[in-house]
Amino acid sequence: MTAEDRWLLPEGIEEILPPAAGRMERLRRELLDLYESWGYELVTPPLIEFLESLLTGTGNDLELQTFKLTDQLSGRMMGVRADMTPQVARIDAHLLKRAGPVRLCYMGTVLRTRADGFGGSRSPYQAGVELYGHRGHESDLEVLMLMLETLQTAGIGAVHLDLGHVAVFRELVRQAGLDREREGLLFEALQRKALPEIRQQLAVWALPAPCEQALLALAELNGGPEVLDEADLRLAATDEAVRDALAMLRRLVAALLQRWPELPIHIDLAELRGYRYHTGVLFAAYVPRQGQAVAQGGRYDEIGQVFGRARPATGFSTDLATLLSLAPPVEATATGIYAPPVGDAALEQRVAALRGRGERVIRALPGAAAAPETLGCDRLLVQQQDGEWDVVLPPLPSAANE
Amino acid sequence: MTAEDRWLLPEGIEEILPPAAGRMERLRRELLDLYESWGYELVTPPLIEFLESLLTGTGNDLELQTFKLTDQLSGRMMGVRADMTPQVARIDAHLLKRAGPVRLCYMGTVLRTRADGFGGSRSPYQAGVELYGHRGHESDLEVLMLMLETLQTAGIGAVHLDLGHVAVFRELVRQAGLDREREGLLFEALQRKALPEIRQQLAVWALPAPCEQALLALAELNGGPEVLDEADLRLAATDEAVRDALAMLRRLVAALLQRWPELPIHIDLAELRGYRYHTGVLFAAYVPRQGQAVAQGGRYDEIGQVFGRARPATGFSTDLATLLSLAPPVEATATGIYAPPVGDAALEQRVAALRGRGERVIRALPGAAAAPETLGCDRLLVQQQDGEWDVVLPPLPSAANE
Repeated sequence: MTAEDRWLLPEGIEEILPPAAGRMERLRRELLDLYESWGYELVTPPLIEFLESLLTGTGNDLELQTFKLTDQLSGRMMGVRADMTPQVARIDAHLLKRAGPVRLCYMGTVLRTRADGFGGSRSPYQAGVELYGHRGHESDLEVLMLMLETLQTAGIGAVHLDLGHVAVFRELVRQAGLDREREGLLFEALQRKALPEIRQQLAVWALPAPCEQALLALAELNGGPEVLDEADLRLAATDEAVRDALAMLRRLVAALLQRWPELPIHIDLAELRGYRYHTGVLFAAYVPRQGQAVAQGGRYDEIGQVFGRARPATGFSTDLATLLSLAPPVEATATGIYAPPVGDAALEQRVAALRGRGERVIRALPGAAAAPETLGCDRLLVQQQDGEWDVVLPPLPSAANE
Repeated sequence: MTAEDRWLLPEGIEEILPPAAGRMERLRRELLDLYESWGYELVTPPLIEFLESLLTGTGNDLELQTFKLTDQLSGRMMGVRADMTPQVARIDAHLLKRAGPVRLCYMGTVLRTRADGFGGSRSPYQAGVELYGHRGHESDLEVLMLMLETLQTAGIGAVHLDLGHVAVFRELVRQAGLDREREGLLFEALQRKALPEIRQQLAVWALPAPCEQALLALAELNGGPEVLDEADLRLAATDEAVRDALAMLRRLVAALLQRWPELPIHIDLAELRGYRYHTGVLFAAYVPRQGQAVAQGGRYDEIGQVFGRARPATGFSTDLATLLSLAPPVEATATGIYAPPVGDAALEQRVAALRGRGERVIRALPGAAAAPETLGCDRLLVQQQDGEWDVVLPPLPSAANE
């Protein structure tokens, strides 16, 4: 084992050095302050839990993504959280048990056995909010708005929003009487927008014509908000659940455009990321030249059920490292005062007072003199002839040699 | 598996709920601001690393405390950090490679397979600082001072400080020519202050009288700063390294008492926590009725060697959860404004402006009415007859029924 081997980090595992770590901390604060100003309370779920708590009700994807550990104390299997959403649902269901709507936010590292995409991170710094206890579109809208505010706070422009609703596909499948296997085949083809394949499948299954036409329409119903009008026409034969879903999307679009008139909104009724656990509206924010969503969320009303309390839930999450990588670069503007080593009481009091005012004061260390500017110090603390300690600018470089 | 089983957390693994999570976040910010004002730059080491990086040079204790994982991508063993100190040393040695003194701070969760004491945490929220590149007592003093400032910032009073120096024992052992086994036996007996046992051992080993007397004296040399005078007398026959260590402790005591005149300082020349990797001064802070140190640190100049760069290092660490548990309770003083659901543009602008000023504004959700005070709201946003939205106090409870 060479020293160099000891330096290597596992693929997709990052450390954050100065000054990036400081930028991350500032974004963390700005976002937590934003969430607090909207009434979201911070919760800090544990880094590890028993595996069944972490994975209950979340499906197979999360299980494959979860690192497993043996608990030496209990002999049971534990997992490192790969997603904080189920943890926060457990906290709402079991620990808080409040009757009315509950707004929670969270922020912290999650670990994944494999990265989502090529070259992706296995240790995202996940941030998000959850709103429990309300079923109407107002709570979806609140969470959606807060997702967009999050991106704005992070300084990310050129966001476009994808919007969908699982009820449309779910209801059309129910009307068509498709079994699990056929539903799965169709779902998978829809995600790829493989229109010829879908046409072929539907023809083989010999569904009633209105069902077939509606399912076919689904693959084509994506584009700007005008898609909702087209959907009203092409899915007119279908029932109330579909019409309700379309009406809800229309309400969300209107409210979003009131607040963000320039926001590009893309409606896609067949894009069903997280279909298995979502129960209502789905949304994701994208930026140009970034294949993966930078933030995403939706409604998943059943998430608390496995913890003994199914209640409405809607939320979004994002990754702070991704947000920072997309934010415009910030000029480093370190300032500070370079002060002599520990000395008399007057010096110590002056240093303490400067730090108390928010100044950065770095003490010289005897025998390890450093140029103040290499430590980000633009001023010096110097004793004057009257014995007072004053903050002064450093002497200008001597011009004698010019 | 019942719902209740899914609620249980592993022993010693904690989650933090409101309002405690908010208090933790505030303390995190206060401490990071404190460290920044002293010139310490934040680094964020990864949660997991290859096992050899995490454990190199740290000894067996840390290995037993480290959770192990298999990396599916490389097939190699990884560990979850149980202590961030070696990670920060790696960052100084390899990644920053700066020539002069480097000041770093860190904050984050670490995981341990077993708790330190009975009922203890297996997931402390570790915070600390490290100062690299300086060998003199000034850097130890700076770190010691910052540890005491940390406790003061956290609101912890009645701190007393334990102070020692590994060079005294190490030098006496060298002079006596003890082998590893005898050193270990003596070390272990000294930690227990088992005076009769030490006397018996020394008699059996038949050391030269001055060596025997000095080693015996060690077990008794603990108490207030006056112990340093006694040590000068009783260890007078010993060499320069011991005298230097005593002189250094004397300098630290003088500087500490200048800044904190009331600080109880306990000198213990035989208390050698972390003896295996420490190379100089050792210190720990205690509070009444708390058996374990609340913060601790010392000098360990060799820590970077395994990463290819041995250079002087001194630092301390603490656990934010412990600090919060010892801090005086804080009155919850939630304030906020309860506002109607999403509405016209004037309302939305007013809500955004209030939030921008740092106000907490919670929107009502139709069909899930909540009493504003249960959401911590002490005011209401109400539309006046002229159409303006004003912040008003809630109506007093009606006295009609009294």
